[in-house]
Amino acid sequence: MNDNKNYVREITNIEDDFAKWYTDIVIKADLADYTDVKGFMAIKPYGFAIWENIKEYADKEFKKVGVKNVYLPLLIPEDLLNKEKDHIEGFAPEVAWVTHGGAQELENRFCIRPTSETLFSNLYGKWVKSWRDLPMVYNQWCSVIRWEKETKPFLRTREFLWQEGHTVHDNAEEAKDLTLKMLSIYRELIEKKLAIPVLQGEKTETEKFAGAENTYTVETLMHDGKILQAGTSHYFGQNFSRPFKIKFLNKNEEEEYVYQTSWGISTRLIGAIIMAHGDNRGLKLPPEIAPIQVIIVPISLSNEVVTSKANELFDVLNKSFRVEIDKRDNYSPGYKFNDWEMKGVPVRIEIGPKDVLENQCIIVERDTGDKTAIKLDDIDPELRKILNNIQKRMFDACKNNKENRTSSVNSLDEFVERINENQGYIKAMWCGDKECEAEIREKTGAKSRCVPFEQEKISDKCVVCGKKAKHLVFWGRQY
Amino acid sequence: MNDNKNYVREITNIEDDFAKWYTDIVIKADLADYTDVKGFMAIKPYGFAIWENIKEYADKEFKKVGVKNVYLPLLIPEDLLNKEKDHIEGFAPEVAWVTHGGAQELENRFCIRPTSETLFSNLYGKWVKSWRDLPMVYNQWCSVIRWEKETKPFLRTREFLWQEGHTVHDNAEEAKDLTLKMLSIYRELIEKKLAIPVLQGEKTETEKFAGAENTYTVETLMHDGKILQAGTSHYFGQNFSRPFKIKFLNKNEEEEYVYQTSWGISTRLIGAIIMAHGDNRGLKLPPEIAPIQVIIVPISLSNEVVTSKANELFDVLNKSFRVEIDKRDNYSPGYKFNDWEMKGVPVRIEIGPKDVLENQCIIVERDTGDKTAIKLDDIDPELRKILNNIQKRMFDACKNNKENRTSSVNSLDEFVERINENQGYIKAMWCGDKECEAEIREKTGAKSRCVPFEQEKISDKCVVCGKKAKHLVFWGRQY
Repeated sequence: MNDNKNYVREITNIEDDFAKWYTDIVIKADLADYTDVKGFMAIKPYGFAIWENIKEYADKEFKKVGVKNVYLPLLIPEDLLNKEKDHIEGFAPEVAWVTHGGAQELENRFCIRPTSETLFSNLYGKWVKSWRDLPMVYNQWCSVIRWEKETKPFLRTREFLWQEGHTVHDNAEEAKDLTLKMLSIYRELIEKKLAIPVLQGEKTETEKFAGAENTYTVETLMHDGKILQAGTSHYFGQNFSRPFKIKFLNKNEEEEYVYQTSWGISTRLIGAIIMAHGDNRGLKLPPEIAPIQVIIVPISLSNEVVTSKANELFDVLNKSFRVEIDKRDNYSPGYKFNDWEMKGVPVRIEIGPKDVLENQCIIVERDTGDKTAIKLDDIDPELRKILNNIQKRMFDACKNNKENRTSSVNSLDEFVERINENQGYIKAMWCGDKECEAEIREKTGAKSRCVPFEQEKISDKCVVCGKKAKHLVFWGRQY
Repeated sequence: MNDNKNYVREITNIEDDFAKWYTDIVIKADLADYTDVKGFMAIKPYGFAIWENIKEYADKEFKKVGVKNVYLPLLIPEDLLNKEKDHIEGFAPEVAWVTHGGAQELENRFCIRPTSETLFSNLYGKWVKSWRDLPMVYNQWCSVIRWEKETKPFLRTREFLWQEGHTVHDNAEEAKDLTLKMLSIYRELIEKKLAIPVLQGEKTETEKFAGAENTYTVETLMHDGKILQAGTSHYFGQNFSRPFKIKFLNKNEEEEYVYQTSWGISTRLIGAIIMAHGDNRGLKLPPEIAPIQVIIVPISLSNEVVTSKANELFDVLNKSFRVEIDKRDNYSPGYKFNDWEMKGVPVRIEIGPKDVLENQCIIVERDTGDKTAIKLDDIDPELRKILNNIQKRMFDACKNNKENRTSSVNSLDEFVERINENQGYIKAMWCGDKECEAEIREKTGAKSRCVPFEQEKISDKCVVCGKKAKHLVFWGRQY
């Protein structure tokens, strides 16, 4: 990548082949690379820096509500994984098994954690004695493995990074409240930092987590109208505490099983950022989460007045912004402009000999391409305003896409027509019957996304069977 | 742990059985717990908070010298692990093998990374093209697995958390410099934050890392006089770049193999803190790294004037210190004093009705037990001074232990006598011959710790064979 000729700029057109466009961005924006092992990616510095920003924000928010971080083992003994019936049915087909330690075959095999409900439950059974010990609100940042057949960087990989929170409580209400509180932290992260509007609601019985009583979700709509589940939060009731015997003495000195939750977000969010915001010039990062918010490109590197002014500007901005300066001497300014657009840096600052004379610089906004000359004396507050505007515009653009791609339907035919024409969210009434849900999936390729918290009544009847409707459901084809 | 009677305070006496004392502390100070899987521990919130503080400091220092974080796969294909001869010999006996994904047996098995030189080398081979791409200075925070026979929480576990830095350079000097620069970051962390003096030097041929040209180390002396290797930094030369074909075009447009390093520290450092500083009252944490620097214990919880003053104090201190307030109503103050001493909190503040009247509080220092009355108006600067003094005293106490336990010897008999009487570091001259090193190990149970950077000449002759000595070496029995 050291020579203009060898560095092919072009990426697949976003409207021609969205899937190919996506993987082009992952590679060309230098976020991640493929490895020799199918389904395992290497997250490169630029991609990892986005994850670090997400992590830093989320971890702070978690700690504000009393979450404590821990670290539990990577390996789960087979008999432990098998303890909760629904859970093992959900995960057994996709776990990786460790059978040998050094040259020796192990007596009992272990799986690499696909998620850690069983491990946490086993330890909580040991740690919890009385109501005074509760709640325990623990979380870990780690990697998990799920042996998926189809894989795609960030979206579906055999290994991914995530956080998994696991909590135990002495009453159901507190546990349910926490489940929703964590969901709202996810919503704030995704809307305010990643600039992607979410749909919040509860998963149907078919779509909920293996072993959960209720699964709540934040769903996001991508550029192509397909839906990405961005984070989930589960209420388990006593489904795990019974088989794992997590009991406590309540205030009446009676033994009781704890009430439990778990919740998680993953590096999949990086996939969401790419697919919600990117365009034909490449990645487009919301300023709040961008590892580099501002890139300074001095226009004439051989001109000492220019470079010294650019350095000065860097020093000023470096106090308040994540800023870098591009002094590579083997690339033209034009090449650099493309390069930083590909990497989605929200603001580019160009500064050349003329600008120095006028004590100004040129600001170019990634999302609109707009160019503005700004006096160097005003740069700090102006830049702050511009970055805030970009953040807001990016959210609004996604919100428009979501609104334009949301349709209400009253028949299955209409459902098929709309989703084929527009993808997106399909709003339809549902009787609550699994068979009707399965029929929608079969006929339209869409799954139920969730029963949204904000219910409306667009009709009395189930869109499939015509019987009395129970809920309004959002449906959509998913990643 | 909800009742004084059920909470056994006593721990094994540190002088009677140091090993048992150590595991008592791990459990009673609530740092970690055993799990159902031998050699795998659960790091609990209090232990993990220490690791977070270490990580936060180290990560910042790394970034200052240009380190970038990445994430590479957990699994390594067998053929990749086998590519560097010495490396595979060093690690093959202790890796865990994944043989099945879901129900299917895999065509080629994978090991769980014991360390990631092979993975990084494989990817660097793909990523590096020209001198302009270099150096690449990457690091990852992750867990690794080594299937050890004997295990002990934090010190030697089958899974542990660490960081592993891996770098590639276009010349040997820069790579060697970086190896030493990272070592000096480790030294600063361990001396300034963990308050443990280190011995710095180079490992002998026998003790160096599998595949390295040079291994540099920071060694630490524990309370019982045994030695713990606390961090290592390796220079590989071209040992990995040749088999992995990591080539670059140099400035003369010639192909050349890169020069490589790796370096790491792990959760073992938590073991070092416990064993360097702890005493018969429990853990003793250096203020710089303590998750709780100050614990406020209101003496009469039923007295509202006391609790409101304690809350006020908390609010003031919370701005500058890591402080907590103990309002548990089912424990006596005396119980709480023991509890926070066990957890090694550097400063306890007691505040009772009399103190409120006199506008003061009582400060108790964990390391000396000294009690001082401090006026509430002076609390912030006084506390700062006291914490700094504790940090310094803890370092000095370890330094004294190190000095008292370092002996120079001129014969093998003297060597045996000294190490049996005093453990510690034994300084002895060495000819450089592996057989003499092996003889020392056999006769004394001590391994060479390192050839220290600061050389002295205590004799001309090798302590074993009497031939011309090459180096002064520090020896010691190790963890």
